[in-house]
Amino acid sequence: MKQLKERILKDGKCLEGGILKVDNFINHQMDAKLMMEMAKEIVERFKGTSIDKIVTIEASGIAPAIMVAYLLDVPVVFAKKKVPSTMEGILKSEVFSFTKNRTYEICLCDSYLQKGERCLFVDDFLANGNAALGMIDLASQAGTEIVGMAFLIEKGFQAGSKMLREKGIRIESLAIIESLDNCEIKLKD
Amino acid sequence: MKQLKERILKDGKCLEGGILKVDNFINHQMDAKLMMEMAKEIVERFKGTSIDKIVTIEASGIAPAIMVAYLLDVPVVFAKKKVPSTMEGILKSEVFSFTKNRTYEICLCDSYLQKGERCLFVDDFLANGNAALGMIDLASQAGTEIVGMAFLIEKGFQAGSKMLREKGIRIESLAIIESLDNCEIKLKD
Repeated sequence: MKQLKERILKDGKCLEGGILKVDNFINHQMDAKLMMEMAKEIVERFKGTSIDKIVTIEASGIAPAIMVAYLLDVPVVFAKKKVPSTMEGILKSEVFSFTKNRTYEICLCDSYLQKGERCLFVDDFLANGNAALGMIDLASQAGTEIVGMAFLIEKGFQAGSKMLREKGIRIESLAIIESLDNCEIKLKD
Repeated sequence: MKQLKERILKDGKCLEGGILKVDNFINHQMDAKLMMEMAKEIVERFKGTSIDKIVTIEASGIAPAIMVAYLLDVPVVFAKKKVPSTMEGILKSEVFSFTKNRTYEICLCDSYLQKGERCLFVDDFLANGNAALGMIDLASQAGTEIVGMAFLIEKGFQAGSKMLREKGIRIESLAIIESLDNCEIKLKD
């Protein structure tokens, strides 16, 4: 997506260790108009796919997910990283974060993932794909189908995309980072 | 707001201890169309107020905040509950949660709250107002003005609203819960 790619080159920052910082328009401060444009692009790419619900993970997946859900007029449910005291019927999965070098738990109330539902997973980043795997696990526990996954930014040089595609999951990423070598952002295409 | 009030009475659940559970349409599973309607109502209520930015706190404030930001065409920034390793220039504040009976930290990168900016705080719930106080503290550290606060649901029988109004802050709540006594939801008006 041209608009996103230009913005990444303009406002993204590359830190040591292959970290791409886009927290001035994606995941801390957010550009709401751009978020809606990205949601439109996601909807366009999944045109013709029947989708009952959007699923995501707090916190930075929520903004793109609610926009996509709004455009498709379907509910959105976000997995939480802490189990709320008032939640019953909890589905849980463990996710290992390479960035944070620790394992965390994600959870969902089982009322909000129904057997046979067709869900689109929306998130801000695809890197190693561990958060996506956690969501696949939750969906599988509920008997829910993940019909595709949409990411704003994919780190194409990390393992997530290949691993998820090999599982037969359709992946759409609006911008693919080819390399962050020498702290320089190189985009695919 | 009529549509929200009806939905609370239809789908809200009251738990022991004055807890209102609206996690099937507000803060776990979310109704995206309703979220946009609520955002429109917030924009309508603050018509005539000059607003440079929307501020909120992760995670459940993000959905209404991004919708309001979209409608007003301003950026939105959300305070995080964990300090990211890649964040520089951090503003921090402590928030005591009555629901969870513990203190947590909220933080914001100081680049995203500028001196003299006029911010509208948007959140899902107003109860004791401690999260709102935390945001006032962050804004005050940055020299940013909070021109108002908008909440989807206010627990009118708790102290937050009165305390914030006494500080001279304009508060708008789309639905006000008068009482949850005997596990029955009573709305104001």
